[in-house]
Amino acid sequence: MEKLLRVNMTTGTVSWEEFASLAPESERPGDHRPAGLTDGSSSSAHNGGAVPADLLGGRGLAAKILLNEVPPATDPLGPLNKLIIAPGRLAGTFASSTNRISFGGKSPLTGGIKESNAGGMTALRLAQLGYRAVIIEGQAAERKLSALVISAEKAWLERAEDLRGLGTIETVKILRQRYGDKAAISLVGPAGERLLPAAGIAGTDQEGFPGRYSGRGGLGAVMAAKGLKAVVVLADGAVPRRPVDKALWDEALREYNRLLQTLPATAERFPLYGTAATLEFTNRIGALPTRNFSRGQFEQAEAISGTRLRQIILERDGEGTPTHACMPGCLVRCSNRYADKMGRFWVSPMEYETHALLGSNLEIGDFDQLAELTYLCNDLGLDTIETGAAIGVAMEAGLLPFGDFAGARRLIEEIGEGTILGRLLGHGAAVAGRVLGVRRIPMVKGQAMPAYDPRGMKGNGVVYATSPMGADHTAGNVVAVPTDHLDPRGKVELSRQLQIQAAVFDDLGLCNFVGAVWSTSPETIARLVQGLTGEPVTVESLKDLGLDIIKTELAFNRRAGLGPQDDRLPEFMREEPLPPHNSVWDIPDEELDAIWK
Amino acid sequence: MEKLLRVNMTTGTVSWEEFASLAPESERPGDHRPAGLTDGSSSSAHNGGAVPADLLGGRGLAAKILLNEVPPATDPLGPLNKLIIAPGRLAGTFASSTNRISFGGKSPLTGGIKESNAGGMTALRLAQLGYRAVIIEGQAAERKLSALVISAEKAWLERAEDLRGLGTIETVKILRQRYGDKAAISLVGPAGERLLPAAGIAGTDQEGFPGRYSGRGGLGAVMAAKGLKAVVVLADGAVPRRPVDKALWDEALREYNRLLQTLPATAERFPLYGTAATLEFTNRIGALPTRNFSRGQFEQAEAISGTRLRQIILERDGEGTPTHACMPGCLVRCSNRYADKMGRFWVSPMEYETHALLGSNLEIGDFDQLAELTYLCNDLGLDTIETGAAIGVAMEAGLLPFGDFAGARRLIEEIGEGTILGRLLGHGAAVAGRVLGVRRIPMVKGQAMPAYDPRGMKGNGVVYATSPMGADHTAGNVVAVPTDHLDPRGKVELSRQLQIQAAVFDDLGLCNFVGAVWSTSPETIARLVQGLTGEPVTVESLKDLGLDIIKTELAFNRRAGLGPQDDRLPEFMREEPLPPHNSVWDIPDEELDAIWK
Repeated sequence: MEKLLRVNMTTGTVSWEEFASLAPESERPGDHRPAGLTDGSSSSAHNGGAVPADLLGGRGLAAKILLNEVPPATDPLGPLNKLIIAPGRLAGTFASSTNRISFGGKSPLTGGIKESNAGGMTALRLAQLGYRAVIIEGQAAERKLSALVISAEKAWLERAEDLRGLGTIETVKILRQRYGDKAAISLVGPAGERLLPAAGIAGTDQEGFPGRYSGRGGLGAVMAAKGLKAVVVLADGAVPRRPVDKALWDEALREYNRLLQTLPATAERFPLYGTAATLEFTNRIGALPTRNFSRGQFEQAEAISGTRLRQIILERDGEGTPTHACMPGCLVRCSNRYADKMGRFWVSPMEYETHALLGSNLEIGDFDQLAELTYLCNDLGLDTIETGAAIGVAMEAGLLPFGDFAGARRLIEEIGEGTILGRLLGHGAAVAGRVLGVRRIPMVKGQAMPAYDPRGMKGNGVVYATSPMGADHTAGNVVAVPTDHLDPRGKVELSRQLQIQAAVFDDLGLCNFVGAVWSTSPETIARLVQGLTGEPVTVESLKDLGLDIIKTELAFNRRAGLGPQDDRLPEFMREEPLPPHNSVWDIPDEELDAIWK
Repeated sequence: MEKLLRVNMTTGTVSWEEFASLAPESERPGDHRPAGLTDGSSSSAHNGGAVPADLLGGRGLAAKILLNEVPPATDPLGPLNKLIIAPGRLAGTFASSTNRISFGGKSPLTGGIKESNAGGMTALRLAQLGYRAVIIEGQAAERKLSALVISAEKAWLERAEDLRGLGTIETVKILRQRYGDKAAISLVGPAGERLLPAAGIAGTDQEGFPGRYSGRGGLGAVMAAKGLKAVVVLADGAVPRRPVDKALWDEALREYNRLLQTLPATAERFPLYGTAATLEFTNRIGALPTRNFSRGQFEQAEAISGTRLRQIILERDGEGTPTHACMPGCLVRCSNRYADKMGRFWVSPMEYETHALLGSNLEIGDFDQLAELTYLCNDLGLDTIETGAAIGVAMEAGLLPFGDFAGARRLIEEIGEGTILGRLLGHGAAVAGRVLGVRRIPMVKGQAMPAYDPRGMKGNGVVYATSPMGADHTAGNVVAVPTDHLDPRGKVELSRQLQIQAAVFDDLGLCNFVGAVWSTSPETIARLVQGLTGEPVTVESLKDLGLDIIKTELAFNRRAGLGPQDDRLPEFMREEPLPPHNSVWDIPDEELDAIWK
């Protein structure tokens, strides 16, 4: 039986529902949404009925549940918000790159709906235990911390006040002692406990290191606001999913694996250099965020390039590795493990987004310094993108000079300590920049931009502006598309296609890098889905699913008060030319507003 | 000739237009709004054509100009916002309570349209010099400070960098030395220069003290963001306005004066006790903000009551006075001048809103302490409501205990110094509360609530929720209406009427306390308007004007991205009963949403 686990933090109780019970709000018993706080508008167009429920997983399932159960105008850190934990629809087998876990909720950063997914072990385990989703609702009295423990047959909350204030790395060590090394753990650090919107949710990888991040949108604060320090999914009773149409699955999987192992991106580039390889490209085309998004190229780019990262890891020849699988069975292995000068394991993974936001954006050009900042962020439970962007505006405000590594480290420590400045930065670049009087704030809907300046990569600017997620490259990234990134023409349509694709992937639990397979043979993905679920699926029906997910999210956002005026890049990007190409943001608002019509 | 003065801070130039040229945007030459940033929606319904232009003044005129000329989504502190300075339509004679000055612009606090008006000398002077409005646009390079000097025949900008960082009190002394004691001065203090959204615009009274505040919405930051430290209106060439229909005017004015001098509110209560009298009432009915809006009554209320204030001022028997006219010719004289223990003038005015927000809200129950906080706020150019509410959430966050006067004073000093905490508090209660992790934040649309807890005075809750101005008692105050303030029934309709009345008053430049006359004989007001302007006016046509102004403002706000989800009181007010009556906010959202339909 596929099931939903519902955890009420107010009462400390758990309950199960058959997945089939995920019906529109009005038909489902046991709902606790106070009538006075709903907005009264109809949700019939996007209540889970538009697409086969059997295809819903990850982001798609989270969106449906949130629209059905959460009053869109509610306080994201209050008791009426919910945290949805949903494995992607393809999760549960050992097929490569299919086991991403989605966290969903109303974001304290954007005020809209948010989904943030990551690799690691949790999706695989939940799917193998038969869970379609876990719904965390209510709020513990005084936000006392608990850990949620989940196995095949039972789930329960255990007191976790003893873990309060502990970093994610120490916390995971303790939890693995308690629950065994096979437990898949998702958790928050001190930043989440302080309810900071820059806080993400960390997840353990195969080695038990909590470096897999659902970083964006402040869902770590949502989780901690409920009184939840960690979710521990036990391995006992886990059973690999059996494909409904095994012949189709086997055949599709063979083709899928062949493509992953022969396409240049997944067979060569990412295994060798990981996401870090992206920096050379964005720097070359002038889209690398540098000095708080005031330039598109960084003088020290070579020092933090993918090539250099691989070189350092290989030179140190110890516990580091330049290629590492964040999920079991992954053939791409874009992750890495970074060792210190003595060859001892330091942190994992070292990623492009971090190198750009905490590196070039702050004019820090040293991998050991970036490893130290990454480690700190990981341990505190902070999104490195939001944190880097917040420190960038602090540097622009004159609190510390660009390039000041020790100062940047100190600011991250202050976030952990909860000083006033730390709390301010932990609220993200938009709030920090506003309070510090900075006009050049790289954000959309209150969320900091990731590592592609939209003046140098127009397509990603469209994604930032129009995604229900706010500025988020994972909602549809044009970086891999061969195109003139400075040319505004055609970028709205390109973004639309990529956003729909991203929604499909986030529903299925597919890694973004499977995009190479999708571009070559989307039918292979459709056949995988049909083989596993038995649901008749075509490429077109998957695209319909993706668009439906986005429209569900837009419906939530509209009711939460986000409108076209929020689908805008910051004013300075229309005014300030970005060196070296001196391009400005020049896609007309009307084109943006038409994207989902 | 009635004229508009347009001041371009980017180029440092001024120009005049005949008032008749105030036509819809598309027909007016010389507009500099960049096409790329307009929202493209039609403004034909509210472009100044719906009501006779001859009736437009103050808030109404500001609303029309802002909707026509400012892109609603623009950065409030950027070059595309404008600051409108408009005397009320009745200004320019020495009739009592008719010379209020309106400042308008897009608010950095609410993100919507904002008008904030005050007494003092500026409206009288501008109207007597023939100005219908002054439009400040653009932005000085590096925001270098200037003073705008206006006389009948010319206007010019003078460098004012030497005044940077000076408090309003010192600044006014210097400007009066330069331009004479008759100059009417509007200015910002250090809080405005720091672009803090809690910054207001100060204006001089008849004695030249800058205690008349257009406090709300952060228009001080808007003014300073343009590079404007002060507006100096000279008296040379000022000519009292001549009524077009003198017989009608004289007759109406006699009746108007008779009513002001015989109605209990304007003849007795306000002259004796000023606005401070309100505290006894709100405390009695349980609507006095106490301890960050967690209670409706204050143990030490008697110590900061209107009765006690009058007693102290009279006892000290020096330069203080319990009754004082903020505008020439005022018969009500609700203002006061407060002296220290030695009888030396200290500060003016001492007002109810300040006593509640910096007093009971912080559990500070001493008038000399309140005088000190008021003086500090006035000198720094801070809105006492926003500042008091921000310190209230800081106390709730545990930064300092309730009742800590020295701590509160220190926090205000920090706002002036621009420390991180000071900048945070200077961004107002909403941002400060959010960053400090406080859930009980008394605000609507990012603006702090004034001195009436909406759970204890339901009608004002409707005003806070539905006014285009955010939480603002001057947009329609039910405090003087005999009604059961705990009963939600009928309060939406009551608020609607009072908001329309407030819009009429703010257009005409009438003091709120003329409300007593309006309630008794609105025809007298209509006849005054017709007598002065010659425009045929009825009570109904005035109400149409008021509604049209609000709809103009709502149109701006909608295009700025404010929707029904922003017309809400904070969630905690539905959940937390307010002692002593333990009432909660219980007016349904649907009723709120229907108010302007």
